[in-house]
This record gives sequence, structure tokens and C-alpha cells, in this order.
Amino acid sequence: MTDEGSIDDRTRLTRGADFWSTEAVGEVPSLVLTDGPHGVRRQRGDADHLGIADSEPATCFPPAVGLAQSWDRDLVERVGAALGREARALGVDVLLGPGVNIKRDPRGGRNFEYFSEDPVVAGTLGAAWVTGVQGAGVAASLKHFALNQAETDRMRSSSDVDPRTVREIYLRAFEHIVRTARPWTVMCSYNRINGVYAAENRWLLTDVLRGEWGFDGLVVSDWGAVRDRVAALRAGLDLTMPGDGGAGDAAVAAAVGSGDLDPADLDRATTAVATLARRTAAGRDQRDDVDHDAHHRLAREAAARCVVLLKNDDDVLPLRAGARIAVIGEFAQLPRYQGGGSSHVTATRVDIPVDEIRSRAGDEMVTAVAGVTTDGSGDAVGLRATAAGAAADADVAVVFLGLGEKQESEGFDRTDIELPSDQLELVAAVIAAQPRTVVVLSHGGVVRVAPFVDDVPAILDGGLLGQAGGGALADVLFGAVNPSGRLAETLPVRLADCPSYLDFPGGHSHLRYGEGIFVGYRGFDARGLDVAFPFGHGLSYTRFAYTDLDVTVDDEVLSIGVTVTNTGPVVGREVVQAYVGRTESSVTRPPRELKSFAVTPDLEPSASHRLSMTIDRDALAHWDVRVDRWVVEGGAWDVEIGASSRDIRLEASVTVAGDDVDLPITWQSTLAEALADPAVAEALSSSMPDGAGEMAGSDLLTLVGSMPLDRLRNFGLTSPALIDLLGDPDAG
Amino acid sequence: MTDEGSIDDRTRLTRGADFWSTEAVGEVPSLVLTDGPHGVRRQRGDADHLGIADSEPATCFPPAVGLAQSWDRDLVERVGAALGREARALGVDVLLGPGVNIKRDPRGGRNFEYFSEDPVVAGTLGAAWVTGVQGAGVAASLKHFALNQAETDRMRSSSDVDPRTVREIYLRAFEHIVRTARPWTVMCSYNRINGVYAAENRWLLTDVLRGEWGFDGLVVSDWGAVRDRVAALRAGLDLTMPGDGGAGDAAVAAAVGSGDLDPADLDRATTAVATLARRTAAGRDQRDDVDHDAHHRLAREAAARCVVLLKNDDDVLPLRAGARIAVIGEFAQLPRYQGGGSSHVTATRVDIPVDEIRSRAGDEMVTAVAGVTTDGSGDAVGLRATAAGAAADADVAVVFLGLGEKQESEGFDRTDIELPSDQLELVAAVIAAQPRTVVVLSHGGVVRVAPFVDDVPAILDGGLLGQAGGGALADVLFGAVNPSGRLAETLPVRLADCPSYLDFPGGHSHLRYGEGIFVGYRGFDARGLDVAFPFGHGLSYTRFAYTDLDVTVDDEVLSIGVTVTNTGPVVGREVVQAYVGRTESSVTRPPRELKSFAVTPDLEPSASHRLSMTIDRDALAHWDVRVDRWVVEGGAWDVEIGASSRDIRLEASVTVAGDDVDLPITWQSTLAEALADPAVAEALSSSMPDGAGEMAGSDLLTLVGSMPLDRLRNFGLTSPALIDLLGDPDAG
Repeated sequence: MTDEGSIDDRTRLTRGADFWSTEAVGEVPSLVLTDGPHGVRRQRGDADHLGIADSEPATCFPPAVGLAQSWDRDLVERVGAALGREARALGVDVLLGPGVNIKRDPRGGRNFEYFSEDPVVAGTLGAAWVTGVQGAGVAASLKHFALNQAETDRMRSSSDVDPRTVREIYLRAFEHIVRTARPWTVMCSYNRINGVYAAENRWLLTDVLRGEWGFDGLVVSDWGAVRDRVAALRAGLDLTMPGDGGAGDAAVAAAVGSGDLDPADLDRATTAVATLARRTAAGRDQRDDVDHDAHHRLAREAAARCVVLLKNDDDVLPLRAGARIAVIGEFAQLPRYQGGGSSHVTATRVDIPVDEIRSRAGDEMVTAVAGVTTDGSGDAVGLRATAAGAAADADVAVVFLGLGEKQESEGFDRTDIELPSDQLELVAAVIAAQPRTVVVLSHGGVVRVAPFVDDVPAILDGGLLGQAGGGALADVLFGAVNPSGRLAETLPVRLADCPSYLDFPGGHSHLRYGEGIFVGYRGFDARGLDVAFPFGHGLSYTRFAYTDLDVTVDDEVLSIGVTVTNTGPVVGREVVQAYVGRTESSVTRPPRELKSFAVTPDLEPSASHRLSMTIDRDALAHWDVRVDRWVVEGGAWDVEIGASSRDIRLEASVTVAGDDVDLPITWQSTLAEALADPAVAEALSSSMPDGAGEMAGSDLLTLVGSMPLDRLRNFGLTSPALIDLLGDPDAG
Repeated sequence: MTDEGSIDDRTRLTRGADFWSTEAVGEVPSLVLTDGPHGVRRQRGDADHLGIADSEPATCFPPAVGLAQSWDRDLVERVGAALGREARALGVDVLLGPGVNIKRDPRGGRNFEYFSEDPVVAGTLGAAWVTGVQGAGVAASLKHFALNQAETDRMRSSSDVDPRTVREIYLRAFEHIVRTARPWTVMCSYNRINGVYAAENRWLLTDVLRGEWGFDGLVVSDWGAVRDRVAALRAGLDLTMPGDGGAGDAAVAAAVGSGDLDPADLDRATTAVATLARRTAAGRDQRDDVDHDAHHRLAREAAARCVVLLKNDDDVLPLRAGARIAVIGEFAQLPRYQGGGSSHVTATRVDIPVDEIRSRAGDEMVTAVAGVTTDGSGDAVGLRATAAGAAADADVAVVFLGLGEKQESEGFDRTDIELPSDQLELVAAVIAAQPRTVVVLSHGGVVRVAPFVDDVPAILDGGLLGQAGGGALADVLFGAVNPSGRLAETLPVRLADCPSYLDFPGGHSHLRYGEGIFVGYRGFDARGLDVAFPFGHGLSYTRFAYTDLDVTVDDEVLSIGVTVTNTGPVVGREVVQAYVGRTESSVTRPPRELKSFAVTPDLEPSASHRLSMTIDRDALAHWDVRVDRWVVEGGAWDVEIGASSRDIRLEASVTVAGDDVDLPITWQSTLAEALADPAVAEALSSSMPDGAGEMAGSDLLTLVGSMPLDRLRNFGLTSPALIDLLGDPDAG
């Protein structure tokens, strides 16, 4: 393929044959695509029109909301490799993930499929996922490209956003992954971006993705994202899914014939399909059996790494041997472990938390009560009283709280971040009966913890942990695993504090990104707002000291060394975070931005480890709208090493060489800018009346210094010397 | 004029002859324009190039920052009439005001020239000003049109803002004034709006101003705002000031010749100049002498109405007869009473606060000390100790604090909202020595009061009060005038709480209006943030009860009646505010928006007054971006009557008829929208496979209900019946 193929053949290659596969044309085989990202959703039997039929059993790894809390790129790559093996075994060529959209607002219905509010966390972990999956010979599909932050009106809504925010926040993870992990496919999103559909957005799919970032793979549409196949091909989209059953093929062929579609665009698309087939060929040839037991063990290891110990007063955790435990809440029996919608996997098995707790503590030490019903049926008062009684009779209560599938899913956004009120009443009753209470949270989107955070001594936040979450939670509760997870998303005190609060989910098919670059902790920090738990936060059963920070700078990279010592009583590992900031800047900036992170190996008590991190000098760049490119400001930068965004342990100031931004004096330059240039100041001074050139430093300059040179003519001020220097003002 | 005039003559009419006047051409006389808005700045002798020479004495009325605090349209109209008389006497045809830009951020350097953060306050008072001035036969010039909210890079910066915000917040006051007070001229601003210079913005100057609002006057440029006279004429600008000394006339004539400029545009501009001359002719013929004493009395009356009693614990105010008073602060001797820049007036006289206090209290009862020096010279510790000593020796201390002309002016924005630190140290020392301390604030922009607000029992906020402010403050301090002023701007707890905090003053020649419609109290309320003093706040020496709210609605107007009773000990007047809100809405809204306000007459103790207010039904409209027009939502509206935005006394719910928004089902409608239309639902159901039409109400609809009909083809779903109903999907 493909130049020799007929127009008709080539046209057929650019759309699906059915819901989950492409056409086989000539040498190019049919390719199978399935949903990911935390498990392979290979549909059974015939694909239905909307793609929601039952799927083959597959390991349900922690969804991105959980996985991100590991802050562990090696772990994510191992999960990716396992996903790749399962995909390969099921005959899947393209696994639709990772989802790396930034979590802009906690109400976003699809947040559970995304990693973080921070582009470095999303980009680093997304790249690891791609590397893992593609290492198994299966294509990743980086999604949803781009600016898809809400479910409300998701197939029409325009994400209205300024260019600096687009680049620094919303494209940065995509850019990192494309440049470093080289995914074989990218999936365009449903929404519009500043009015233009992603599927028809040539700037996005061609200028940026291919031109700037060097993407050499295939761009596939999100399922149903294409309105007009010709417009999409022209913009840079290669494969329309699921396709129109061929109904639009003639229109595509006609557009080539009429000149409406450049044949080169069709060639690009068909070449992309052929290239993808070549890349996935190795995977198709190696369909090993999957060791589902081993994958379940990996899912459990991963899930345990994802649990965040938000709070642990009086060392309530880990649970003591011999303690009588009241396990309360329906999620202990029927765990919530993945999100709803296209990513929903048929798990190979599911660990039940209360069973795992029993198996560690002994059946006789555990009393399990529901406390509430998820459907609101039954005697709420009685259930609550029973739970409080069980808590009072035990030495410690473990209360499972969280959001059910009715409260959050792909397809709709939440309107608040509250836990259901019956659960809040339950936890209040339990706390009143048993001060030694541990809350375990399960949720895809952030929930507000203010109603109980001050009253319970310990909270474990699991997000969604996948099919082995029950075992993993037991591991952490009993200290078999010392928690090292960190929040990848700020837990606000109130929804109304969130930077995007007043601009979500938009309306009338527009969504303003009003807060600009101040997403997540960037906004909370910039406004000095209190949070419930900050971005990057997570405790351990041990303690770590950070010492001996060393930062060296060369032309390309900042190299950071820091020594981490386990100063507490048990083995543990520590996630270390590197933030940067600048006090003086030509652009508005948040106080700090994460630029790197790393995890120590397990450290015995008193053991130390010298951790190395690097920050590419390019990562310090801001998007300069004057020149439409990345620019690094030179001079002093602060490097902060922290255990969270609000627990900075060590700081250093380094000097970085800046990028030159050549902004010559023109007629559009201001008087103040012009007077700072000796040659222009001389020209102004020598030929203008009233010594306008002598204004430099005077009070008058405050008033008129912002006047562009071309506006001087309004005052009858002309300068032949300036015209000699700058040319004809009307020519510009 | 003007059709018969030569191209050259007509071209000359469209630019200034010198800094402050236009060309006389044929029957059209030279017209004189001068700065306002709070006094006539008629320059002495020859106009200089930059227009900053000394000016003739004129009454300095309270600048807009002060005047707005009266919330009194009749008072503002009387001030306008006095300004008109002074302008006429000085041979001025056009007085450059009012400035009605919305105070978006407290750091805005020109906020002192503007009325409010709220468009109804700005629009109502601006309209009264225009009516007053033009009643004297002098043209007003409504400015700065539009979206000019920062001084930083003001002649290049683009105000980047969404259409709903433009209409509901930033154009609303302009629209109200143009429609109701019909100003004879409008002045375009320096800045760009979404990238297009105001002076070259045809949408703004022609489509909206003339087309939608029916403006029939002249559009003049701000001084030096024009880059390209042809582009400006084409956009709808009539008069370029101060003009280029004729250097660009040939280019304008040539553009007409080449067809680059429609002769109709030149005709429109010259007709506008001729019309303005006709309108101001009566004023030119009647140059009465001005009674400066009477105007000073008016300035004092107005200033007293502008003083806001922020706080008055223990009835520290009014000052008791026979009390020994320590008057502290340099502003008591050298009052700050107007802002810096183009609006700076040469006052006819200036009341000195301490002299006015002495004349009321008796010389022997008053000790005056500076406490600080405005220039930082001298022995700060000694000055402070002297002040504290004087305070301790007196019965009460009155401390004048505020911002000097170095701290704020046209031409630059502030970087914080702090009072100078030496003043804060002074007030702390005084409070420590004398608990009965009154703070009097003078400032053009908001200052943070947190450092002392909890420690001083009484605060008077004057903003800037004009030349008679000293007398007016004495009137209020001693109770000769019972204060009735109200804040026209929120006093935040912290600058970082302000909605625009992270987007001001912009950079790289762009200013994002990130907070959208949530400006001022709209944003503080929507986020539930504490404020130091809310929008609309102001105390009295008496108390008022609000009773018997009655709201009636007809097709055009909401008529509000409320009874206000003076339940306190002294005569007083009350500013009553009417807010509206909606709980359920198709668009995001602030909790409440001011829609009307009124002032009672002076009420004796126990006296009642039935106050009437009206709200045009049109004032309830939001800007609907789907149809690009104003739309009133029908159904229940809350009407709240308050003494401030956070002191709501009475509430009513009324039902208002909504506007029809005809949004027919198209291929771009979603499945959920389509299924809500019986005919379309029938068409879907009858002809599509798998009974897609039966999805209404099903869980599946949650996932796919947001899919536009034209996207169904992606799934091979076609509906001949739908094509019959909606036409060819590719035709749209």
C-alpha cells in the first residue's frame, strides 16, 4: 500500500469496518481496537452499534485516578506491559489509552479515567503506560486530544481557552508523551477548541501534533467524533471510527476528484493505517497465554501503591494485631473499583475488602455491617444504629465511604463533590460511638472530606483501585504495605474554592477556561487558599528526612540530588517532588510548579538513599504569546524539594541561561521601550520638538511612556530620524 | 455642510486643529473640548503638545470614586448641570466625561475616574451626569468605550473577553446611558478588544453603538488612540484627536479617491461634527457668569453625601460637643481630594479638614499633629510618638489615612492595595493610646483595611471628595450631615480574594478577563468569600426598618414598593437597593445582581416613606450566545431588597414571562434534544434500527444523549424519516 490502491480502497481504509475493527484492504489487514485504559474491554461476539455489550474477562488494574496516586513510573510501565500482553492475547491491536487530560474541575465525570491536575504527573505516567503497552507490540492511543474536560454537551461544547493555557497546561502532557514515548496512535476528542472541532482542527492535528512534535503515527477519531470525513481528513485525521458503514466513502472519493481534498491528505491517512498495521504485526504474531494470577498479583501490588494515607493521628494505623475490628459500609462488601462507561472492564476476579480483612485479622475479630444501603432502601436509622453499636463493641472501626456508579460515570458531570448524606450520617454515628475510626474512601472524582476530616483520626484514600483493591487495602490497613501514595489532585475545603468553580460545566455549548493556567494547586497556591489536603500529599507509617540538596545546571538540564533518610520505625518508600518557581517574572506565574518527581526504593529504618532527579531546561519555558513559542526566562530560579506542594523541605536558588527573544523596536513599540534603546532614543531626541527624547526618567514618562511610536503622529510629532531608523510607519 | 464641502474640507473636519479644538470649516465652527469629568480643565493660553499645562480655576467636584458613593442620581444630575454651566462659561463645547468603565480590579490606576464595579450604579449615575451637563447646552463624551480596565500598556493591550461578559458587565452601563440619556459624543478607548483596536472596531462603533443602540452623535478618539485615520473612519470613528496637524489629511482624501474609504463614512463623520456644532450652539450663545460660591456649596453638599460610614461601634460618631479632639495625619492639612492625570483640575478653593473641624469644635478643643510625613522625611518614630501623645491627651482621635498622588494616578496601575506602612504604624500607635479613634480614608482606589478594622471603632470612607471634602467631612464628623453614602465597590479582606486577582494587569499586551461576569460582588458572592465591607454597605447615625414589600409585574416592568421607617434617634436618609436572582437558570449566574436603587428623602425619627423602584423586564435579560441577543428567562425570579448586597431585608418571588428562543431541531441538535420533540422522536423511532428512538429515559441516554444527530451516521445509523424532516445533513 498505498499509492497503488484505488481511491475506493484507500477511502475504505480511513474508516471502521464495524464498531471495533478497520477494513482489510489489500496487504493491510483488519485491525482491532478496544477500549482501555485500565483493562482490555474486548467485546464478546458481534459488536453492537453502541459498543456496550459484555466483554471478555480481563484484569481490571487501578483506573488512572488510582494509578496516578502511585507517582511511580516503573509501576505504571509494568501495568502497561501487562495490559499489552492481555490485549495481544485477545487479538487486540490498539488499546485505547492512556487518558491524559488534565483534571480541571473535580466535577468532571470522566476524571476517574485521567491521572492528574498536573501535566508533569499526567505526562510522566502516561508516557510510562505507552512504553509498557507498546513494548508488548500493541499500539497505545493517546487520548482525548485535546481540551476535553467536561462530559456536559461533550460532543458540541467549545473549550474556549487562551494560547498560553493551552500550551502550558492542556497540551503539555500530550507533548511530553508524543516526544518521548512515541505512541503509535492519538485519539482526537469530541469537543471543539475555540470553536473548531478537534476532529477538524488542522492546527491541532497537523501543525502542532505532526509539525511541532514530530508525531509519525495515526490519528483516530473518538467514536462518533467526526461530522464530515472530508474536513477531518483535511485537518489531519486518519481514521474515522466506528465509521459510517461506507456511506460516506463516495463523498471522500468525490472530494479527491473535485480537488476539495488534497490526494496527499488521503495518502497520509492510508499510509498511517498501513504503518500502524506494520507496527502491530509483531503483537499479532505473538499471542501468549496470559497468567491471570500473576496479573492479579500485579494489580494488588499496584493498588497498594496507590493508596494515600491522608491522615493518621495517634498512629491509629496500621491496625494492631488482636484488635477487634468493626468493618462498616456497603463498599466493604461490594467494592467500587472502576468507573462507568466505555472503560468498564469485566474483571477476572474481585477482591472483597471485608474478606481480605478477615483473612488477615481472623474471622472472629471482624464484625461487618452495612450501615447504609446504596439504593437508599431499608431502615436507615436502624442500619446506622447497628453500625454504631458494632463500632462501640470493637477496638477500632473501619468505615468504607464513597461514590457509587449512579453518582459518577462517563456521560455526565457531577454537580457537587459531596458524599451521599446517608454515608455522612453513618460516619458521624460511628465516630460518636468509636473515636478510633478509620475512613476508607472509594471514588472516581474528588469528594469533600470537611464533614468528618477533623473528627476521624485516620483516612485512607484509594480513589478507584481495580479488582485487587480489596486485598491492597487490607495490605495497607495492617501494615503489610507501608503506604507511599500521593494525591495527584488537590482536595479542596469547599468546591467553591476550586479555580474553575464558576466556569464548569459551561453552557450553551461553550466552556470558558476562565482560570487560565491556574488549575489545581497552581490556583489554590496563587490565591493563598486553605485546602483540605494539598496536591502531592500522602503520609507513611514511617518518617523521612530530606538533606543535602544539590542542584547543578548546565545548558540542557538541571540535575538535582537529595538524600532521603528513613528516620522512623518501619521500612518505607518516599515520593519526592521537585517544584520550581520565580519571584520576578515577565509573566504571571503560580508560586510553584511540579517539574520532576522520584520514588526511593524501600528504605529500612535509619537507611539513606541519594535520589537523583533531572529537570530539562526546556521544562522551565513559558509560552510567549508575543512570539508564539516556548521561552525560558533567564536568571534566578527557585528549586523546592517537597513531600507535597505545601510541605517544602529544601530549597535552592539556581541561575539559568535564558532564551533570547528578539523584539526589535518598531513603530508599535512604546515610547518607554524606544527610549531604552540608545539609537532610537537618540533619533527621537535629535529631531523632535520640545525634547521629547529627554522624557526618559521624568514623571511625564509615567503618563505617556506606554504610547506606541506610531501614535505620536496624533500629536503632530514626527521624527525624520526615526523614519530613517524604522522605515515608513504606514508600511507596517 | 457637508455634502457640498470639498474632500479636503471634509477631511479637515475629522481631526483636531490643535490639542483642544477642531477646525472651523465653512459653517461649522471650531469646537472646544476639555477634560472632565469632575471639573472643567480648560487649559490656559496655548495648548501644549501633551495637554498638561495649567488650567483655569474651576470647581473640583467629587471625582467619580466619591460621587458614586452618593448613590444619588438627582445629586449627580445637579453636579452635572453645574459642570455644564462652568464649561459653558469657559467656552467649552464638549466636556470629556462621564467615565463609566467598570472597576474590574482594585489596582486599576484610573479607578478614581470611574463609578463602580456594578453596571447599574455606573449606568444610572453616568446617565444623570450626561443629563445634567447636556441640559446646560454642553456635550458630554461618554468614555472610555470600551473594555479599558487597566493602565498597564493601555495603548496596545488587548482586553480578551467573552461575549456574554462584554454585554452583561462591560457594555451595559454604556448601553443604558446611550439609550436613555443620549450623549452627544462617545469617546473610544485606547485599548484593543479581542485583538481589534477600539478606534478601528466596526463591531463596537457601528454595529453595536449606532446599529443596536441608536447612537446619533459623534465618536471621538481618546487623545492619541488612532493609528490609522482611514481604518478608524471606516470603523465608525468620526473625530481623531488631537489630530496629526493635517499630516494625514491627504491619505484620507486619497483613500476616498481609491475606493479604500467609502465616501459615506467620511460623510457620516463630517455630519457628526456638524450635528455636534448645532447641538452645542445654544451653549455657545449663553455664557453666564458662574457663581463659584454656590458651586462650592454644591460641591460640599455632594461630598457629604459621598461619605460612607463603614463602621461606628459604640456610637463614637458623631463627635460630641465639648470633646477634646486630636486630629492626626497629613491629609487633614493637605487633603487628597482628586486624582492625578488628565482629569486634574485647578480648584477654585480647597477646604482644609482640620480648619473645618476647628471651626465646628472651637480652636481650643483641637490638637492637630501630622504623625507622618508624606515624603517619608523627618523623625518617623518621634512624629508617631507625638501623635500617640496627642491622642492620649484628647477624648477622641481622628486619623486621616490614605493614598498620595505618588501611590496612584492615571498612567499606571497599583501592584497592591496597601496603605503606606508608616500610616499603618501611625494608626496602630494612635489606637494603642486612644481607643476612641476614628479613621478617615482618602483614596482613589480601594485600600485594605484589615490591619486596623477590628481595632478602631469608627471608619469614614471618603474616596476622593473634591475641593469641599474638608468641610463635608466636618459636617459628617459632627453630625450636621447624617451619612448616607454606600460603597460602590467591594472592600475585600485580601487582594488575593478579588475575582480578577490572577488576571491583572495582564502581560505581553493581553489582558484576560478570566473571571467573566463574576466581577466585584458577583464574584465574592458566587464563591461565598468573606469581605471586609460588602458592595452597597454604609451605616447611618440612625436606623431604618424596611417593611411591606410589594412587587407587581406586567409585560414591561417590575414595580417595587417598600416602606422605609426611621426607627432611630435622628433625621436621616436611606439608600435602598433592589437585587434580583434566580435559583434555577440555563446560564451560570451570581447569587444576586443589583437592578435598581433609590434614596428616601430625609426622614424624621419615626417617620415612614413609601419608596418606589422599577426594574425594566429587559434588565433581567442575559446575553444568550446561541442567538447573540438578550433573552429574559421566564418563571420565578427572586427580588431582594437590601441595605447592602449582604444585608438583605426583604424578599419576594415573582413570576416573569420569558422570551421565546426559537431553537428548532437540526442535525446539530443532540439526541436528547431531539427526543424531547415528539415529531423528531417519532421520526427517529420509526426508521432507525434497534429502536434508538426508545432510548428516551433509559440509562443509555445518559451516555449517548449528548450526541448530535449528524454524528449518528458514524454508527451507520441513518433515518430516512429524519432526513425528510430535517433535510440533507450535509447541506447545513
